Amino acid sequence: MATKYLLHGKITAKPGHVDTLRDILLQAAQLLSQVKGCHIYAVSKDPADENSVYVTEVWDSKEDHDHSLQDENVRALIMKAMPIIDGMPQRGQELEVMGGLGV
Amino acid sequence: MATKYLLHGKITAKPGHVDTLRDILLQAAQLLSQVKGCHIYAVSKDPADENSVYVTEVWDSKEDHDHSLQDENVRALIMKAMPIIDGMPQRGQELEVMGGLGV
Repeated sequence: MATKYLLHGKITAKPGHVDTLRDILLQAAQLLSQVKGCHIYAVSKDPADENSVYVTEVWDSKEDHDHSLQDENVRALIMKAMPIIDGMPQRGQELEVMGGLGV
Repeated sequence: MATKYLLHGKITAKPGHVDTLRDILLQAAQLLSQVKGCHIYAVSKDPADENSVYVTEVWDSKEDHDHSLQDENVRALIMKAMPIIDGMPQRGQELEVMGGLGV
């Protein structure tokens, strides 16, 4: 059974910067539509956690995901986000997608 | 900003039943492709947690999601799964999707 790679994680912004972080991640989603192997890059919020943004990604493979981090435009967005991120971003939950709708 | 509804949760099978649970959830994904408002229903596993299956769903709204639980075919699959689920299924994480790729 060929599987895909799902990554679900939280990024916390410094107080007052969550909208800017959200916009950077939405820009990343647009960028990743042109990057090999990226199918889903959902940018979400938790109504009970106003400083955090959640990203849920589905890729053909972990290798495609990791390779995207070398893309200079992706790196530029990461650099733009780093100063407004509170502490170190957690790795997030890594799962193997076995199938389903929309993936 | 119109948002969508994301639900990310874990269901644990009784020992020896995880493949059956996975297959029931993959059947649910097929069924939900015909149900109003369901865009994503990803069925995943965590290599470090062999008895659990993760479901990541994206719907137009929480109402559409909740309404789907009244569908008789969906209820039949839920009844099929209940005897092989270990304990009570946890509610899962509910998020508001603000945008991104594939959602």
